[in-house]
Amino acid sequence: MANPTLEFWFDFASTYSYLSAVRIRTLARTANVTLRFRPFLLGPIFKTLGWDTSPFSIYQAKGRHMWRDLERLTADLNLPFRRPEAFPQNGLLGARVALVGLPLGWGEDYSVALFRAEFETGDPIDAPATSAAILAGLNVDPKTALDAAQSDDTKAALRSQTEAARRFGLFGAPSFRTAGGELFWGNDRLEQALDWARRGK
Amino acid sequence: MANPTLEFWFDFASTYSYLSAVRIRTLARTANVTLRFRPFLLGPIFKTLGWDTSPFSIYQAKGRHMWRDLERLTADLNLPFRRPEAFPQNGLLGARVALVGLPLGWGEDYSVALFRAEFETGDPIDAPATSAAILAGLNVDPKTALDAAQSDDTKAALRSQTEAARRFGLFGAPSFRTAGGELFWGNDRLEQALDWARRGK
Repeated sequence: MANPTLEFWFDFASTYSYLSAVRIRTLARTANVTLRFRPFLLGPIFKTLGWDTSPFSIYQAKGRHMWRDLERLTADLNLPFRRPEAFPQNGLLGARVALVGLPLGWGEDYSVALFRAEFETGDPIDAPATSAAILAGLNVDPKTALDAAQSDDTKAALRSQTEAARRFGLFGAPSFRTAGGELFWGNDRLEQALDWARRGK
Repeated sequence: MANPTLEFWFDFASTYSYLSAVRIRTLARTANVTLRFRPFLLGPIFKTLGWDTSPFSIYQAKGRHMWRDLERLTADLNLPFRRPEAFPQNGLLGARVALVGLPLGWGEDYSVALFRAEFETGDPIDAPATSAAILAGLNVDPKTALDAAQSDDTKAALRSQTEAARRFGLFGAPSFRTAGGELFWGNDRLEQALDWARRGK
């Protein structure tokens, strides 16, 4: 019988998506769950909710708590963490590159590396050079991948992803969705989502 | 040396505050942490954020996830849970009664019982009869307590609580605050907050 699957929905701008991205593959292996990385854009979904940027920027007390929470959580996880100078960053290019790479086998490595570049090193993720360096490190030709990322097909594919996210009731990232349609929101629910997936729910 | 302390900030309308209220006293005893229950009102704080009701009512996808999340979490915790017909309920009377009872020694029992009445039985928490029944069960004279709850002193005390919450940067409930001023938001952070308090942070 095939392994159960879990969809991992993320936006590269999202701080808590970073915490899940760097942990999810090891946890999924242990649970014998096959992952499906699903990058999407929160921006269009936030716009429907009346927000033109991250709620962490709109609601200052919520933002202050989020940064302190990230410091505490990354310390507990022994993860490097550096608050980027600009927040939120624009995850558009990253999401497109990830969509190109997922069927080719390097999309997950690229995604995790881009999150690390953003929240460990402080690199600008909308700069093509940031992605190019990661791709080169994965033995992927940067020009081919970046050109494919900007193709009309990829642009349309990302729009469909985001529409699927909306259809599935997503309102934040990270989110996790089982084959049975159970939706879990937030890095705090990663373990629970894997457990539901593992039990075939 | 006195035990370290942790402030437990809650609003009776808050679903996730229920999950913390029914768990926190046992967990705090184990951690040798002394609790300070601090009821407050989210309404005035939400108003500043531009919300005239619960964000779970304003943002429908977020609300749908919250109710499903509560079902899953209460099932895991073997806690009874019944979605109230009206949401959010008005926690004003409950917060005032709790403020009367906390210095008298019955405030914590009353608070936990009111949360249970709301989310286990489905009772209306703004009805004086709901509080009266709980108080009678605690051998507290309901009329004396309810009169004290509606006194000008108690009304002013609740306003100060809510202003203190705002000053401390609270933006949701439950929240936890250590003697060192560390702020933790959400039932998901209860264990971490107790751990910080236990370590004297």
